[in-house]
Amino acid sequence: MELGLVGLGKMGGNMRQRIRNAGHTVIGFDHNPDISDAKDLADLVGKLTAPGQPKVVWVMVPVQAIDAVINELAELLSPGDIVIDGGNSRWTDDTRRAAQLAEKQIRFVDCGVSGGVWGLENGYALMCGGDAETVKTVMPIFEALKPEGEFGFVHAGKVGAGHFTKMVHNGIEYAMMQAYAEGFELLEASEIVENVPEAFASWREGTVIRSWLLDLMVNALEDDNHLEKLRGYADDSGEGRWTVEAAIDLAVPVPAIAASLFARFSSRQEDSPAMKAIAAMRNQFGGHAVKG
Amino acid sequence: MELGLVGLGKMGGNMRQRIRNAGHTVIGFDHNPDISDAKDLADLVGKLTAPGQPKVVWVMVPVQAIDAVINELAELLSPGDIVIDGGNSRWTDDTRRAAQLAEKQIRFVDCGVSGGVWGLENGYALMCGGDAETVKTVMPIFEALKPEGEFGFVHAGKVGAGHFTKMVHNGIEYAMMQAYAEGFELLEASEIVENVPEAFASWREGTVIRSWLLDLMVNALEDDNHLEKLRGYADDSGEGRWTVEAAIDLAVPVPAIAASLFARFSSRQEDSPAMKAIAAMRNQFGGHAVKG
Amino acid sequence: MELGLVGLGKMGGNMRQRIRNAGHTVIGFDHNPDISDAKDLADLVGKLTAPGQPKVVWVMVPVQAIDAVINELAELLSPGDIVIDGGNSRWTDDTRRAAQLAEKQIRFVDCGVSGGVWGLENGYALMCGGDAETVKTVMPIFEALKPEGEFGFVHAGKVGAGHFTKMVHNGIEYAMMQAYAEGFELLEASEIVENVPEAFASWREGTVIRSWLLDLMVNALEDDNHLEKLRGYADDSGEGRWTVEAAIDLAVPVPAIAASLFARFSSRQEDSPAMKAIAAMRNQFGGHAVKG
Amino acid sequence: MELGLVGLGKMGGNMRQRIRNAGHTVIGFDHNPDISDAKDLADLVGKLTAPGQPKVVWVMVPVQAIDAVINELAELLSPGDIVIDGGNSRWTDDTRRAAQLAEKQIRFVDCGVSGGVWGLENGYALMCGGDAETVKTVMPIFEALKPEGEFGFVHAGKVGAGHFTKMVHNGIEYAMMQAYAEGFELLEASEIVENVPEAFASWREGTVIRSWLLDLMVNALEDDNHLEKLRGYADDSGEGRWTVEAAIDLAVPVPAIAASLFARFSSRQEDSPAMKAIAAMRNQFGGHAVKG
Repeated sequence: MELGLVGLGKMGGNMRQRIRNAGHTVIGFDHNPDISDAKDLADLVGKLTAPGQPKVVWVMVPVQAIDAVINELAELLSPGDIVIDGGNSRWTDDTRRAAQLAEKQIRFVDCGVSGGVWGLENGYALMCGGDAETVKTVMPIFEALKPEGEFGFVHAGKVGAGHFTKMVHNGIEYAMMQAYAEGFELLEASEIVENVPEAFASWREGTVIRSWLLDLMVNALEDDNHLEKLRGYADDSGEGRWTVEAAIDLAVPVPAIAASLFARFSSRQEDSPAMKAIAAMRNQFGGHAVKG
Repeated sequence: MELGLVGLGKMGGNMRQRIRNAGHTVIGFDHNPDISDAKDLADLVGKLTAPGQPKVVWVMVPVQAIDAVINELAELLSPGDIVIDGGNSRWTDDTRRAAQLAEKQIRFVDCGVSGGVWGLENGYALMCGGDAETVKTVMPIFEALKPEGEFGFVHAGKVGAGHFTKMVHNGIEYAMMQAYAEGFELLEASEIVENVPEAFASWREGTVIRSWLLDLMVNALEDDNHLEKLRGYADDSGEGRWTVEAAIDLAVPVPAIAASLFARFSSRQEDSPAMKAIAAMRNQFGGHAVKG
Repeated sequence: MELGLVGLGKMGGNMRQRIRNAGHTVIGFDHNPDISDAKDLADLVGKLTAPGQPKVVWVMVPVQAIDAVINELAELLSPGDIVIDGGNSRWTDDTRRAAQLAEKQIRFVDCGVSGGVWGLENGYALMCGGDAETVKTVMPIFEALKPEGEFGFVHAGKVGAGHFTKMVHNGIEYAMMQAYAEGFELLEASEIVENVPEAFASWREGTVIRSWLLDLMVNALEDDNHLEKLRGYADDSGEGRWTVEAAIDLAVPVPAIAASLFARFSSRQEDSPAMKAIAAMRNQFGGHAVKG
Repeated sequence: MELGLVGLGKMGGNMRQRIRNAGHTVIGFDHNPDISDAKDLADLVGKLTAPGQPKVVWVMVPVQAIDAVINELAELLSPGDIVIDGGNSRWTDDTRRAAQLAEKQIRFVDCGVSGGVWGLENGYALMCGGDAETVKTVMPIFEALKPEGEFGFVHAGKVGAGHFTKMVHNGIEYAMMQAYAEGFELLEASEIVENVPEAFASWREGTVIRSWLLDLMVNALEDDNHLEKLRGYADDSGEGRWTVEAAIDLAVPVPAIAASLFARFSSRQEDSPAMKAIAAMRNQFGGHAVKG
């Protein structure tokens, strides 16, 4: 089938390639003319001419740019056409955007995409939300992008369910990474354990905790046995925060995911204002030594 | 080589089989005479007669029985012989037992064993501690037990390092399970997500969170889409508690692992005394309604 | 001075009384005509006739009713008049409402109010936000409401700072209550501690943890030594959730406050979906017994 | 009555003074001869000659010195005499020491003491454990030490209950301090809140969170509005760790107390090994930038 693809960055560029490899037609647009197949969005929409299918445009741009693209597409597309948002949108924005497009009878599917640098070769895990009919229409594109085999794609539910599911995936990821990280620190702190990289490597077979993240951790420890080349500093990408916020909205206790998020916040502080306050109170009541 | 194996329960029985399958001689002892190869420990030790190797006895009994077995072996074995503790011992007990046996010049190796019901077929992940010479001597047994391939065994360090590493493995397992569990609850709580089992299944390919535990979770959700047949009740096996205690000893922050442990504690309470106290205070200061 | 007061419920009614006791004029409006001094908002505004002062209207209604009241006041008041929102508003709503009123040159002050059932007698702790000039204008009302003495009032900063500060106050309250609650449960669980109510009572003098909340806890334990008459069930009022959300926005780690919030969420669950997932995974990998 | 007091440091010295102020006889011993009333323990015991009462010796020495003192007292005292351990002992050590002394029919009371630098003037909060008869015998000393009024003393239960109760007190203290600390950081992080020290001060009247710790925090903020003179570094004294360990033993969830303890651990790290592991995994899977 034929697809318009807006945004040809690290993710979008590889996705165009993978979809084309599957035999589909992709008209891509990017602000960088060297890689763009169209000179603007109007041009892209004009080039979608496949008979017997609605125009389908996949939006793969940074979150702060999504609304602008969707506003423009709302003017360019026709009733029955389909917009897919594959960016890192918050699920609550999906509902809003779907309603906006629905006013023009344009259909909307949200799609969380996982895959990073391996996606082109191994496929992208896709989690989408929308009505069944629309998802069915764009299914050939999902089939092209997803990994081979049984897994790697889900139609999770209504509009927003795709990004919600992807967000929860990332929340789980935060806590799994924190699990290995705490284990690493504990092994490193022990005087009797002398071979932490090999301990991690050994876990790759026969254990309950084997996983792809473990494999990555083993790779990292092979290069740098004590991770001495790294600083203990971790950004967070938004989805971890949204996961905890969603949990608060829904009154779901998420202590491990929240702990993982807070650990990242702490990792970025030069000094902790909270712990200054602890030091101050201790100093007041007990004459405990403080460090100025 | 030749091995004495004390304890032929669910774990020990299968381990005897796997070691024999690898071509080694195993004299097993169990209180159940139907499965035992020796009538008591003295008989077992007497039957270890392979020339040119020290007697090696693997102890695979419940934690509360380990000291009794080791006390008896201390009397039966000779200088240079080797005791391997493959039970769920706390690492601090290893040091004590190694010292006790060292008084008789009996050598000691601790070995954490993971594998459960799949061990016989797929191999047991082994994490051991002790001096290099002793570990080398019993290596053929470790080779027989471990999974095929590069991974599944580590000589992690000094005496105690095996059980310490296995304990940390279990601590990581607690937090990984909690990660998936929190994600499950969040997806279930969302009104827009309609297909939680398929969302979990989709994650098996192309995602950062694919793992063996995820596979198990997918299996469980296939049988029981909303886990309605289960109560939210989880025991803990000791290693999770020890992990947090070790972290406290070593001043290592383990918020995600501790959260996972506390969640299990809470799961076993009919009602929470702490939350009664919260209710009591709220009632006192604000006339908030309480539930009697 | 003269004040219009919208909302004469449990809080508003007592506040009217306390302000009148201080010698000010209060025109109150409530949907209950038996206690209202005006028949509607227009009537209330019409009755504010004090010369030489702008009309000042204090809104003390449930959060879901605030916007409707403010919309109406925006039509009734004149440039230079002042609206005070004393309800449990989220600080982000203050900014929005202040902007809305500013379009008509009506001034806005937000004010978090603490005090509950003791407020009439002992005074209400007030935390307000707004520009200095406006706060100064309504200061006589704040003086009337606040407790006697040096403390109990703060002009915390810009519009929103009052509700933000009140929200943080409540977040701290959550974690303090959780602190006592965990201590209570621990003492109750100990076999050697036989006198938990007296232990709590003893802490009222000479300790680091003496506080008003402790006093309340002592009262509760006097009536019901083991809190057997209560269920461990605690609602949350919104501010606890907002505190954690604000912390996430600002990348501030708040592990103790979040733990307190999650404990309340858990307290309201019949069964924990997350712990069902833990039980399911444990059952899959180890044949651990589960409770159906 | 007459009391032997071993250890005349910051705590013991002031306690001697306060007990003497109440009209009792105190023979103190300290390694520093300038302040000691006896030249050694034997001399101290020899000087306890009051007729009609058992010899009573209060041990107020650092934890690592307690066993040595008790071993010596076990030889010097007679059946019916009483040893009080007022140090920062772990409750599990109390049981052991009581059993050791019971072999010689010497009685034992454990007593957790709170008070710090204000104790001499305001009294020491006391939490003791032991049998009722023995506690009654030494009650005049407790009366002398405790604050005036109804509170500040509890006979909490069996031997060990005193130190257990004091330990829980300190665990509560950790989480209360963390509560204020998190609130402080959140207020400081907000752009709309401009007056954090005054916000804290305002809470001293009319709020749910007023407490002695709040008073201390207010003092600290008066001297140093943003705590700029302090580093966010906090030691922990042992009781916080023991509280979490006791909770683990008793399967009591203590998420807020544990979070507070872990925050202190983190505060003492130059860099976090766990967060290095997070950075390493992120780098592996996504090419996320890391800081070397």
